[in-house]
Amino acid sequence: MPEMRRNPITGEWTIIATERAQRPHKPSLDATPFFGGKNHDPECFFCYENEHTTPPEVLVYREKPGAANTPGWSLRVVTNKFSALNLNEEFCMQDDNHLQVCCYARGLAEVVIESPHHTLNTALFPIQQIELLLKAYKERYIELSKEPSIKYIAMFKNNGSQAGASLEHPHSQIIATPIVPPVIQAEIEGAKQYYKENKSCIYCDMIDNELKDRSRIIYENEEFLSFAPYASRSPFETWLIPKFHSDSYHKLTAKQLKGLSEAWKTVLYKIYMGLDNPPYNYFIHTSPTRQDTEEFFHWHMELIPKMTIMAGFELGTGMFINIAIPEQSAEYLRGIR
Amino acid sequence: MPEMRRNPITGEWTIIATERAQRPHKPSLDATPFFGGKNHDPECFFCYENEHTTPPEVLVYREKPGAANTPGWSLRVVTNKFSALNLNEEFCMQDDNHLQVCCYARGLAEVVIESPHHTLNTALFPIQQIELLLKAYKERYIELSKEPSIKYIAMFKNNGSQAGASLEHPHSQIIATPIVPPVIQAEIEGAKQYYKENKSCIYCDMIDNELKDRSRIIYENEEFLSFAPYASRSPFETWLIPKFHSDSYHKLTAKQLKGLSEAWKTVLYKIYMGLDNPPYNYFIHTSPTRQDTEEFFHWHMELIPKMTIMAGFELGTGMFINIAIPEQSAEYLRGIR
Repeated sequence: MPEMRRNPITGEWTIIATERAQRPHKPSLDATPFFGGKNHDPECFFCYENEHTTPPEVLVYREKPGAANTPGWSLRVVTNKFSALNLNEEFCMQDDNHLQVCCYARGLAEVVIESPHHTLNTALFPIQQIELLLKAYKERYIELSKEPSIKYIAMFKNNGSQAGASLEHPHSQIIATPIVPPVIQAEIEGAKQYYKENKSCIYCDMIDNELKDRSRIIYENEEFLSFAPYASRSPFETWLIPKFHSDSYHKLTAKQLKGLSEAWKTVLYKIYMGLDNPPYNYFIHTSPTRQDTEEFFHWHMELIPKMTIMAGFELGTGMFINIAIPEQSAEYLRGIR
Repeated sequence: MPEMRRNPITGEWTIIATERAQRPHKPSLDATPFFGGKNHDPECFFCYENEHTTPPEVLVYREKPGAANTPGWSLRVVTNKFSALNLNEEFCMQDDNHLQVCCYARGLAEVVIESPHHTLNTALFPIQQIELLLKAYKERYIELSKEPSIKYIAMFKNNGSQAGASLEHPHSQIIATPIVPPVIQAEIEGAKQYYKENKSCIYCDMIDNELKDRSRIIYENEEFLSFAPYASRSPFETWLIPKFHSDSYHKLTAKQLKGLSEAWKTVLYKIYMGLDNPPYNYFIHTSPTRQDTEEFFHWHMELIPKMTIMAGFELGTGMFINIAIPEQSAEYLRGIR
């Protein structure tokens, strides 16, 4: 029976429409090859020996000491050569009735080169490598947030060309923006309103619900919970959230980072194995750099496999039609080991 | 120089980032074959002789009289067999703190079979056929809006499988929803606020601006204007808007429908020829069925060619990075004849 479910944070509705799964075409699942691949590609900007083809590293992890921008690193972060933003002088122009308002696109963009291995999927990284990746996000957040004009720092990954990855070598992106983006602003406003009415964090209450109900849980360890959100926008949408209250990713302790690495590796592996390495996007939703959201906001990660195409209905209305039942998606992923 | 432009209606910002167009990969333009194709496919649900494979028609145009659901029609509208919504009894359930709110997905979905020809691209229709299509949208809007539970009627088209079209035969979709979708609600709120402050319609003021400036005009005739919006979200985003003030598509007169057909055919042809028949989505933004928006809202059509992939940044933040300058996109399309 078709139903509509409400996102409790933003108030937006998703149509859960299992009937549409029977339409006469297959979901456009674009599997990329399992395992295999190659360790090193001499043409790749992100491989060993090509460090000079990227801007100088702003963060590097190495097992053994070595010169900057030379091989031997475990993970590097570099400025994005093809950034859409930079930190040149500010300007803003507007016409009288504000129909044409234009500002300099002030910001910073970086690429996290997740591993020296040219084709190893992030889901197959050793857990220590996942930990380096999650630690790099934290360290770059802290560094980038020092720039006064930065209001938000988006940290995300596109896996597979169908999800927008333009290079094969595993990498994540960080984009620091001079505004708080609308999706974050909507979550903050929803969470603030809920806090005002209920004197509790909406995410903490959602976690309590999920832990009682258990039908949407994908994985949990001591400190982290992965689940399919009640109003999932697409098949196999997967969240990961700390069970403890915390508004900001960069406040993670070294111990918490270990727990997160274990949980995140498990989630990525379930997605990879269960859905044949689908294209996906994941992103971290964390507090803006210059707003006090400590009481009511709660950072989390959202992973959206690209199983269907966003088409005219979604683009034109902002509503989503999910052709899978979240509880069934969660049950399936829960079973993948 | 990278800049950010503000959508004057919703207040959302787009990053206009021409530097990124130089990234080491081509935009994922998925051209489908020019011309050619076949007139009839015996396996196609939407072709002549297969009328019995669809639900019965709810609207049909014929040049000569004929029995319902038999060949000879010029355009048919049928209920969508794979609808995500229907008009069964209502229900709504919610938990105490509104974390899980669920309603029956009450609504209606229809498919407009735009032509008997199996593969003829909409851009290559004779103008009379475009007029039938635009008239069918109007007539179905009027009919569907009679159902009291319907709050909005989304009318849209997906062209090409990469834009979400699941069948080759040219068709549009109509989805009538029990809520006003968030994208429409945001436009209405922005336009209402502008009206309150300026005592004029924001869209009418935008039209005046565009007609003076002229750099973003793609095409115009006496009553309609097509232009690249100032804060275009993607390369070659194309709007079409009536120059006269009107909040609702279904108020179009027979004479206005002729003018619209001429303008819309020209726009579709420019997109088809200029961009090698790209995948695209277009949708009509019109007034909700049960709100008085007459003074401040202004219906329009938005067409978004799928030249790039919505990835982690766009999904995670709701911000867009456009790798083309709207004035250059408009200049290019203006030159296509």
